[in-house]
Amino acid sequence: MTPKSQKTRARIQRAAIELFLEQGVRDTALWQIAERLDITKPALYYYFSSREELINSLIAPVVEETEAALADLEAITDLTPDRLLAWYFDINIKHRDINLLVLRDLSLFTGSDLGQRVAGWRRRLVDLLVGTDADLSAQAKAVIALGGISDCVVMFTDADAERLRTATLAGAAGAMGLGPVG
Amino acid sequence: MTPKSQKTRARIQRAAIELFLEQGVRDTALWQIAERLDITKPALYYYFSSREELINSLIAPVVEETEAALADLEAITDLTPDRLLAWYFDINIKHRDINLLVLRDLSLFTGSDLGQRVAGWRRRLVDLLVGTDADLSAQAKAVIALGGISDCVVMFTDADAERLRTATLAGAAGAMGLGPVG
Repeated sequence: MTPKSQKTRARIQRAAIELFLEQGVRDTALWQIAERLDITKPALYYYFSSREELINSLIAPVVEETEAALADLEAITDLTPDRLLAWYFDINIKHRDINLLVLRDLSLFTGSDLGQRVAGWRRRLVDLLVGTDADLSAQAKAVIALGGISDCVVMFTDADAERLRTATLAGAAGAMGLGPVG
Repeated sequence: MTPKSQKTRARIQRAAIELFLEQGVRDTALWQIAERLDITKPALYYYFSSREELINSLIAPVVEETEAALADLEAITDLTPDRLLAWYFDINIKHRDINLLVLRDLSLFTGSDLGQRVAGWRRRLVDLLVGTDADLSAQAKAVIALGGISDCVVMFTDADAERLRTATLAGAAGAMGLGPVG
């Protein structure tokens, strides 16, 4: 793909995310995305032949990045809980728009393996945080900390990202019984 | 309705919850519920004319109870955070089966107002916990504590309820920066 094509493709993806978040995936047709960008339908179809293909092009890189980053984390021998929580906040906020659009139209992904993947990540993160043989009390703390981070990222969309990071990580660290996290 | 009818109706509801959790709402037909109870289809239809009516009969009382209990809480002038968190755990675990079945088949409720209702409850609970003019830091802690409680209830279904209560409330209190909660 030429640099110009790559740029157009990225513009289409950005416009799609905007429209999906404004009016929902189900109520957004490809022609509306073309209209917003002032390009022709055939021009858009050259890049994405269906809405499903476009959605997949948004989600697949996030899945890949998360898988790779998680494998990297699992290879770190001296990973601290505060570093893991901060990483989890950062990757959630980096992909906040995608998280929001998945949450908004969860039913779109009922047939896909995305839900199981996300649940699998969460289990691996709990294991990384408190160990695979942690007791219920430690596991519960990890579940609260991790779920809290992803909740805060999608709930406080108007907040300044740096302030939200500090506030969320303080709460997550509190749930884990840790001191302040940075 | 006679006492006997009420008993049959409740038996149908229990069998429905079991089957919904075992195989999903979408893959459960009314005849399967009748079969499990060894009653005829017409006998079941006398109580519930459709799956939707049956599902609604399961969810409506939970919604009503939660609305009423929340209004009661809002009327308490000296409500403490620990009491509120404990109440939230207790109502979540009381209705765990219903929570699980809604979560499992979220797409069934996309068209209903249930999602907005639950989000509204969460906002009111955050306000009760930290006040309506709380700063981002306090709000984030409340979101983590409340979300963590509902997550733990649906994630640790095999755990002893009393141990789960202690573990979850300890984590939620930690997120809020409180001492141990009972």
